[in-house]
Amino acid sequence: MIEVIIIGGGNVARHLAQAILESDGIQLVQIYNRTLQTIEDFKNKTSITDHIKALKKAGIYIICVSDQAIAGISEQLPQNNSLVVHTAGGVDMEILNKHRNMGVFYPLQSFSKDRKINFNEVPIGIEANTPENEALLQQLADGLQNKYFLIDSNQRKKLHIAAVFVNNFVNHLYYIGQDICKKNNLDPAILNPLIQETAQKTVPMNPLDAQTGPARRGDTITVKNHLKKLTGINKEIYKLLSQSIADTYGKKL
Amino acid sequence: MIEVIIIGGGNVARHLAQAILESDGIQLVQIYNRTLQTIEDFKNKTSITDHIKALKKAGIYIICVSDQAIAGISEQLPQNNSLVVHTAGGVDMEILNKHRNMGVFYPLQSFSKDRKINFNEVPIGIEANTPENEALLQQLADGLQNKYFLIDSNQRKKLHIAAVFVNNFVNHLYYIGQDICKKNNLDPAILNPLIQETAQKTVPMNPLDAQTGPARRGDTITVKNHLKKLTGINKEIYKLLSQSIADTYGKKL
Repeated sequence: MIEVIIIGGGNVARHLAQAILESDGIQLVQIYNRTLQTIEDFKNKTSITDHIKALKKAGIYIICVSDQAIAGISEQLPQNNSLVVHTAGGVDMEILNKHRNMGVFYPLQSFSKDRKINFNEVPIGIEANTPENEALLQQLADGLQNKYFLIDSNQRKKLHIAAVFVNNFVNHLYYIGQDICKKNNLDPAILNPLIQETAQKTVPMNPLDAQTGPARRGDTITVKNHLKKLTGINKEIYKLLSQSIADTYGKKL
Repeated sequence: MIEVIIIGGGNVARHLAQAILESDGIQLVQIYNRTLQTIEDFKNKTSITDHIKALKKAGIYIICVSDQAIAGISEQLPQNNSLVVHTAGGVDMEILNKHRNMGVFYPLQSFSKDRKINFNEVPIGIEANTPENEALLQQLADGLQNKYFLIDSNQRKKLHIAAVFVNNFVNHLYYIGQDICKKNNLDPAILNPLIQETAQKTVPMNPLDAQTGPARRGDTITVKNHLKKLTGINKEIYKLLSQSIADTYGKKL
């Protein structure tokens, strides 16, 4: 039985805690958060605390806090044989090097508070400082029924950047598209089938082959017409992304 | 029974032709394309031709050709009482004004050649020069079991721009994200659950509320770290989109 303590009360912490509670073979010993209220809904399911010095013992401590808070938490955790990991995409494993056993357990997903996710569909990037610790994290992923992949800190930072492109930036483009609809008295929901198809197409098709549209065709007239109707930063975004598409396919705009 | 002739052999033409063949109450009288070979696989299902002067008669002629070719086709079509429509997002209905009955039948979707789409899930933007023609196009959409919405040429052009943002640009960001993975020896498929979740989240959640990531948080340190690892146009895209997100949420980067 793997015993786990989760440090943090944010979206990753809560989704991970819930997944552990629903798993077989992994025990959620405790959740720590500096404000108890955030994690109060877990109080009938596990021990909760806001005293970091009063943490129980566990095989793995999973630090799920903001990037900037990881070092401080690591400093306050007891130095013993437990495995201490964080869950951040952009932070070196070495930040935990006060601990003999350290690693990273990076769930590659975007978690929102009010959005239920099937946690076991989230791929987990695993890194550890010894083969034994790596094996323990693989066992943790297996226990949660998650797919995992081994990844070092440098690769993980690059993967985090890739995730910013396909998640944060994509979501912002959804916002811009829907906003254009709203400003022209069109129901933004009419974009939904297009949004879903564009995403689903990436599974069987390479995005390089799936690309369509004026910039891909080198259709300068349409690109210019669109630019005339745009202003401000949306115009700059349109120009830059069209240029990038045209460059990718050797087209001139 | 609505009788339809399709002009064109590209992705929209082929998907629409197939949908008509599978519908009740709409008859595909003929498909025209300047090269017969492209539409040869339809020859046992309907009449095909490459002689535009030898077109049969039909209630609706649907011009599904590139934006630049629409005017030329319209010019060559017989002037009679048939309804002539095009399917383009960015072209005025008035381009067809040689014809007494004209309109637009704009399927809001991105069609790829080797990708099967449930055409009846595609929302159709309808415009026509008379209420009678509008009603006929509504009947056509109903016959195909498609949802439709009424939209004038100006709104349609704006919608086309919105579609470029949520489809063409999004797909290009998928390409960049997957490319970063490949260049760092990571399987690009690990981004898939994140891509799908980001898209699916837009249905119940407003993208404005769903936004996460360093720019949204005003996390200047992470943004700077990411920019250090990027070069060329990807770096410019990262900078501009992060700026746009930060502006949207009143954050400073």
